[in-house]
This record gives sequence, C-alpha cells and structure tokens, in this order.
Amino acid sequence: MSAISNQDILARVAAVIESRKPSHGGDPATSYVAKLFDKGLDAILKKVGEEACETVMAAKDGDAQKIVYEVADLWFHSLIALAHFGLKPEQVLAELARREGLSGLQEFAARGKSMEEEPND
Amino acid sequence: MSAISNQDILARVAAVIESRKPSHGGDPATSYVAKLFDKGLDAILKKVGEEACETVMAAKDGDAQKIVYEVADLWFHSLIALAHFGLKPEQVLAELARREGLSGLQEFAARGKSMEEEPND
Amino acid sequence: MSAISNQDILARVAAVIESRKPSHGGDPATSYVAKLFDKGLDAILKKVGEEACETVMAAKDGDAQKIVYEVADLWFHSLIALAHFGLKPEQVLAELARREGLSGLQEFAARGKSMEEEPND
Amino acid sequence: MSAISNQDILARVAAVIESRKPSHGGDPATSYVAKLFDKGLDAILKKVGEEACETVMAAKDGDAQKIVYEVADLWFHSLIALAHFGLKPEQVLAELARREGLSGLQEFAARGKSMEEEPND
Repeated sequence: MSAISNQDILARVAAVIESRKPSHGGDPATSYVAKLFDKGLDAILKKVGEEACETVMAAKDGDAQKIVYEVADLWFHSLIALAHFGLKPEQVLAELARREGLSGLQEFAARGKSMEEEPND
Repeated sequence: MSAISNQDILARVAAVIESRKPSHGGDPATSYVAKLFDKGLDAILKKVGEEACETVMAAKDGDAQKIVYEVADLWFHSLIALAHFGLKPEQVLAELARREGLSGLQEFAARGKSMEEEPND
Repeated sequence: MSAISNQDILARVAAVIESRKPSHGGDPATSYVAKLFDKGLDAILKKVGEEACETVMAAKDGDAQKIVYEVADLWFHSLIALAHFGLKPEQVLAELARREGLSGLQEFAARGKSMEEEPND
Repeated sequence: MSAISNQDILARVAAVIESRKPSHGGDPATSYVAKLFDKGLDAILKKVGEEACETVMAAKDGDAQKIVYEVADLWFHSLIALAHFGLKPEQVLAELARREGLSGLQEFAARGKSMEEEPND
C-alpha cells in the first residue's frame, strides 16, 4: 500500500521523459532528454544501439553492477524512443504478457496459482 | 487490488525465464528460453544485439506496432541476460529510479506532488 | 604482376555478391547471398548488426582468430548492403582515403615519403 | 604501376592507425585514433557498435552517400579494433577470399576465367 511499485517506476520514468519533450517545456540546454528529443530520432536510436553494445560488453566482463547499469541505460533510451512515437511502456509490458501467455495472469493470481504450473514459451 | 500491475508482469516474466533454466528443469528441446540458456551467454547477448538492431529498424520505419513488438523482444532478451547472471528486473528498475531522482518518489506520492516540480536528469 | 592484390579480393567478392542477386540469376534456394537479397534490406541490415555484435564479443574474448573471422563476416555483409544499393567497395575505400588525407598518397609514393611525415586524422 | 591500388588504401590506412598508437608516438591530445587507443578496447568496440548502427540507419534512409560514409566509418573502426590486437586487414581479406572460394583466384585470373563459373557460397 505504502510502497511504490515497479510499475510506478516505469510509468513515472516515462512521465518524466514525456515532460522533457521540448513541446512540453523541456529545455535542451539543461536536460539531457530534452536535448535528445531536440536532436531527433536518429540521435535517440543511436543511443539505443550504443547501450545495447555496452550491455553486451558489460555482460562479457561478467560485472553484475555494470550489467544492471547498462540494462537500465538500454531500457531508459528505449523509453525515449517509445516516447518519440507517443508510445508507452505499458504497451511493451502488455506485449510481453501476451507473448508469454501471461494474459491469464490475473486469473492465476486470483486462484493463487504459480506460473510454473503452465509453462508458456 | 484485483488488477495485476505492470510490476507483476516484469517480475513474472522474469520468474518464467528463471523456471526455464536447464538447472531448474527447463527443456532445451521444447523451450526457446531453455535452449538459449543451454547455448550460453554469447547466444543470449547476440539476441540482445539483434533485437536492438530490429528496434532501430522498426523505429526508422515508424511502424508503432512493430516498435512495441521489437522493444518487447529487446527487454525480454535483456531479462534473459540478467537471469544468466542471477540478476532481477527489480535491480534495473531501482537503478532507473535512482538515476532519475525518483528515489524520493514515495515522498512525492505521499505529498501528492508531481514530478514536474523537480526535474532530475 | 602475377600476385593477386587485396584490392582484387574486395572487388571480386563484390563481383561474386553481385552475381548472386536474383535479378542476375542468383538462386535463393542454393545461395546464402541470393537468399539474403531475396529476403530484402532488413534481413541484410540485421546481419550487419549481428556481425558487429559478434565482432565485439570476439574482441572481448581476445580471440584473434575469431576476431578476424567476425570482422570478415562484418565486412562481407557490409558488401551485401552496399550491393543492395548498387554501391561498390571502391567507393568506401575512396572515402577512407579521402578522410585520412590519403588522397595525396600517389604523390607520397612517388616521392618515397612515409605517411608518418604528415599525420592526418 | 603508377595508380595506387585499393589494396594500398587499406594497408596504408592500417599503417596510419598503427602509427597513432601511443606506444608508437601517437598523441591522444591531437589524434582521434591515439585517443581511442588510449581509452582502450571498450571505447574502440563501442565505436564499432555505434557505426554499425549508423550504417543500418543510413541504409534505412536509402541515402547512398551516407551509406558509403558510414560503412567507411565502420571499416575504419574495425581496422582500429584489429590494430588493438596486432591484426592486419590482410588477414580479414584472406579470410574473405578463403570462405568465398577465392583462394583459387590467382588461377582463375591466370586462366582468364570468371568467378561465375564456380559459385562458392
């Protein structure tokens, strides 16, 4: 009840990103995200590619802290790319749920069943 | 209360992935995820790089549905990479919250303040 | 005179690739390159991204033989991407020469000067 | 005899890169390549990943001039990665020749045969 859920984290990071759009008052002079939006889609996508590469390198190093950091960077820039198109993280999560057969998760939760009972991949 | 949150989606996808590890009974012959784990880290990372590339191409096409699909693929394979190292999506979300200055979000929520009052990037 | 130069290798690999275009008689059923052309640009670009990722992983492993192999893969698929647009490796080499200030190389060669005398990067 | 071959371009770009190694007198303060060597392998590989991503984006734009430019960037940073390991472009070209069945090219040339007679991929 009092604890903030992970759901809120993704949604709020997305909200912060949205607020950084120059059209929403974001200032490219002071905000990294606003500057990326200002540079345009290619600059955003270049960062997605770059962070994927850094995730791969961190994983090859086997450095857990760096892996978490780079995946965070990768997801963060994915969120900026989504925002560029007016898309939301909830749509990505819905797709993840759908393809993993998690669409029936509410039922599972209601019935107290675990995922392991019905593997879906 | 009854609705499943997005938090649960990421945590549950991670749980499904975890259950697909060969050491946890996942069968490479029938499960895509178990097969990736069986092939090892390079196969997993190759998919991360591949899905980042496909996200970039979908974004260049401006195809919203494909973008959501490819980002879902990218996040999904990121989760598999995390799982390879015994890492959890919660750690990535905590890092996202930390760096975006969202660590004080509970306070904000409690006081009903919006993010826009204190930009942090 | 009798030895085949590296130039010829790139030009001839490009010629082989060109001959594999379905429009030039390449058969997607028997030729890997013809199949890639048949699948179209996204399939070709996906391979470029994939081979870049594999080059990075081989380099992180510090495995010299694998690095050479993966860079060859990366250049090979770059040549296919170029061919898709009717472009030639010679154009890439001309750009490399131009930006490295090598346009005056013939003069240098004629005068027996080494590059080190006039660094250009 | 008088014309500089493409072979020479790759070999000479590699020689320039080699001369930019700090251990060979390259100065990170004035040379981009020396600075990359100074930063180390991850910085070099990050550029390989970045330029692959930019090649993909240029190709999606269908902009011929930009494609040539980005592939040149990609090959250039591949050469720096090779140099980091003491490897030469000739080794990549030899691998390309080998896998494309071009090892017999000298013979072909000698006999005036075209590649099309013996497709090898």
